[in-house]
Amino acid sequence: MAQSPYKQLEQEWKRLHALRGAMAVLRWDAAVLMPKGSADVRGEQLATLETEYHALVTAPRISRLLDRAQANTASLRDWQIANLHEMRRQRDFAIATPVALISRLARAASKAEAKWLQARETGKFEDFAPHLEEVVNLVRDKAQLLAQARNLSPYDALVDEFSPGLTAAEIDAIFKGLGRRLPSMIREVLARQESRPVLPITGKFGASKQRALAVEIMKAIGFPFDRGRLDESEHPFTEGVPGDVRVTTRFDPADPFSGLLGAIHETGHAMYDVGLPAEFADQPVGRDRGMALEESQSLLMEMIVSRSRPFVTYLKPLLEKHFGVSGPEWSEENLYAHLTRVKRGPIRVDADELTYTLHIQLRYELENQLLSGQLAVRNLRDAWNSSMEMRLGVKPQSDLEGVLQDVHWAVGSFGYFPSYALGAVIAAQFQDAMRAAVPELDAQIARGEFAGLIGWLREHVHSRGASVSAQALIKQATGKPLSAAAALRYLESKYLEPETVLGSAAA
Amino acid sequence: MAQSPYKQLEQEWKRLHALRGAMAVLRWDAAVLMPKGSADVRGEQLATLETEYHALVTAPRISRLLDRAQANTASLRDWQIANLHEMRRQRDFAIATPVALISRLARAASKAEAKWLQARETGKFEDFAPHLEEVVNLVRDKAQLLAQARNLSPYDALVDEFSPGLTAAEIDAIFKGLGRRLPSMIREVLARQESRPVLPITGKFGASKQRALAVEIMKAIGFPFDRGRLDESEHPFTEGVPGDVRVTTRFDPADPFSGLLGAIHETGHAMYDVGLPAEFADQPVGRDRGMALEESQSLLMEMIVSRSRPFVTYLKPLLEKHFGVSGPEWSEENLYAHLTRVKRGPIRVDADELTYTLHIQLRYELENQLLSGQLAVRNLRDAWNSSMEMRLGVKPQSDLEGVLQDVHWAVGSFGYFPSYALGAVIAAQFQDAMRAAVPELDAQIARGEFAGLIGWLREHVHSRGASVSAQALIKQATGKPLSAAAALRYLESKYLEPETVLGSAAA
Repeated sequence: MAQSPYKQLEQEWKRLHALRGAMAVLRWDAAVLMPKGSADVRGEQLATLETEYHALVTAPRISRLLDRAQANTASLRDWQIANLHEMRRQRDFAIATPVALISRLARAASKAEAKWLQARETGKFEDFAPHLEEVVNLVRDKAQLLAQARNLSPYDALVDEFSPGLTAAEIDAIFKGLGRRLPSMIREVLARQESRPVLPITGKFGASKQRALAVEIMKAIGFPFDRGRLDESEHPFTEGVPGDVRVTTRFDPADPFSGLLGAIHETGHAMYDVGLPAEFADQPVGRDRGMALEESQSLLMEMIVSRSRPFVTYLKPLLEKHFGVSGPEWSEENLYAHLTRVKRGPIRVDADELTYTLHIQLRYELENQLLSGQLAVRNLRDAWNSSMEMRLGVKPQSDLEGVLQDVHWAVGSFGYFPSYALGAVIAAQFQDAMRAAVPELDAQIARGEFAGLIGWLREHVHSRGASVSAQALIKQATGKPLSAAAALRYLESKYLEPETVLGSAAA
Repeated sequence: MAQSPYKQLEQEWKRLHALRGAMAVLRWDAAVLMPKGSADVRGEQLATLETEYHALVTAPRISRLLDRAQANTASLRDWQIANLHEMRRQRDFAIATPVALISRLARAASKAEAKWLQARETGKFEDFAPHLEEVVNLVRDKAQLLAQARNLSPYDALVDEFSPGLTAAEIDAIFKGLGRRLPSMIREVLARQESRPVLPITGKFGASKQRALAVEIMKAIGFPFDRGRLDESEHPFTEGVPGDVRVTTRFDPADPFSGLLGAIHETGHAMYDVGLPAEFADQPVGRDRGMALEESQSLLMEMIVSRSRPFVTYLKPLLEKHFGVSGPEWSEENLYAHLTRVKRGPIRVDADELTYTLHIQLRYELENQLLSGQLAVRNLRDAWNSSMEMRLGVKPQSDLEGVLQDVHWAVGSFGYFPSYALGAVIAAQFQDAMRAAVPELDAQIARGEFAGLIGWLREHVHSRGASVSAQALIKQATGKPLSAAAALRYLESKYLEPETVLGSAAA
């Protein structure tokens, strides 16, 4: 008996899922342990799989099956209809971006990334600018094609690739909401902190001890080491598929927290992947609902949970056990002050919760101007530096501290940065709802129990896969539409009324 | 301008090569570091890539291009004509083995391998036998299909997959040649050794020190660590493609040699891969000329080179440096005696050069009988044990020491075992020719210089890729057809006239 068109499509996407998983392993390997001289060989392998993937998705057979399945949805469950919708989205996206453009962009990005790495050595933006310009031009072409096909503005079309359904209008509204209070809040917090000095935390913290600490905490959170790994790489990332999910971090021997927080951030991503609906594990509807939600999961773990008083209660004896440390600088009070210190600095990845959004806003505005042609790449450094001074009151001392700090644009990821700001806002909104539903949350975390936390996320976020839009998911999980309100309340209470936040008596 | 059919075929095989490389990384990862629980996910990925590969090779377009290219070979160079021949061979092979059979066999083999691993725990052949039987049945089907398509006997068709062009007739001739002298030689060597006791080598040799030693020797041999890796796995193997070649070994803390010799064996394979013709790196003609030649390269390094007097001269100070050892048991004389000790034992991978061939002959005869139906799987253990007693005079004390010791049959590799015996014979023949061409070989090896050795192999073996048959390659490299004569001379002179062998004054 012939399978239904829908079932045939599921089979096709099962193959596509396996190809995607294979590419994930190849990328992970390249970032973690591939010999340096093998980059060309690996590039060919990935390009071939990408091309194969593109050919399979755009095959006429897929479009015929999609039409036939769409004509007969009466027999399908809601999840299957949502799955069809996601299949169509992927097909539309692939058809709109011809493989010739994608591979030209991939080559330009690969070159620009290498030039960016070189410029990180010389410190000169000029060495990188011409290569970035080529990437910008190709991304602009891609945005135009996607915009036509998806009936969106070019920038929205790029955002849509990373965070389906989210638009510049929503991003603007979030930034506007945050902008009303954040600048004054930062001033107040800085003034308040000045009167409360933090004891410096120094020492040498070996990588294997840091790793043991990170593994113990990841296990407590629920990371499945029988179907996942923790490794080290230049920059932390999460790669793989549910069933083989791999996170990385980087351990700095002078800092016991950066590697741990990197690992916990990535564990947030990993737990999302692990909690996706198993029934649809190899189907589009079984995937995460975009990067804004992904970042909400990682930032919730890294910023809200790990920099909270109850987490510090859990962490302190672990630090003593793994590093053999003691003394007043390792008190809960000082650890918490250390982890929540606010500082105006030029570097995004070193930024605290309060100033982080300003770093994103700067990039969001500049990438819009680059794509619209309003800003030329050759003027990007000056635009960056003056925006940095205007927003954060700091002047980058070099291009390394300024326009050369992120790899995103080099590799063609325009429209990605807003995910971080949206993620932070969504994380705070989830926390609000979770706190109401799980009153014993803080007590659990202080004991190193994360079942309440992860259980809520699994029910309201992870298990929903891509079955609804990000906006609908947020509304259904929290009872409210996406807005900056919860984030502002959270930051206000954490940084300006320390006695009533997470882990305090009031909880 | 449209490309010629030949050029289009080259493009197609470039893609196939990239797919093959991707599969190699996935298999390497699975054996070296994949989380245990991810086997199913990885299985799907590999099966999908295999199916994709099969579909690409068997596509009608390929056959059309092959016909058109074949009709116009006047404009092609010899290498390109040889490349066409290899392409056709691959296409014929793929068409003869329908993807349904291949995937049924892959699943049965995957299950049998898991059952074999379990049986290695329980020690009971009965637990494994029914699963092996299923594999044997499917391999028999495959052999029939291949035999028809390639106009060979079923067993030759299987051998042909691993070692193109070699046949049971040649294997029989080799075994016959060896059989005339080997049994008596073993008796003589054992009698001689009895009067020359070896001082036992004991101690604890940490994995990181063993690794450092292996890396130093691999570097001396010329292994390219900028485009390759050494790792640890359950069983040593070499995987990957030229440009990203990965060898593994296993370090036994009680034995300073087994891990090192495993690494050197695999380095022999790797140097073959690295020395293949770069111009045809992504083409069939640029690949190795089958497993018999592959094993000749690994056994030459492991058995002939590493168990020679000049190598021991090179090795002794390295052992002192890496392990801080000294004493009479670490003298050159005792080390050489240790590395060339002959012993009748039940385990193939522990066997010495002299008895090794008998282990292979046993397997060769049994697998022929299994495939022809002359021997039933349920009687395999008894057949194994009595053959072992007849050939080697030892009785396996358990199935682990007997019929359960190798994984090859479980994974469907019938026709592979002869490669080991052929490889050993070919290695000795290469050594003869090399020794005549590079008179200073021993002096070089004693100084840890391998340029003369690898240079000869590169010129006469590696750089020839798959451009000629194994037989022609051997004839052209050594001036003689494949035969057991050189192997017998080599063994005789090494084990019965120790003063005139490799590294002695006579050299």
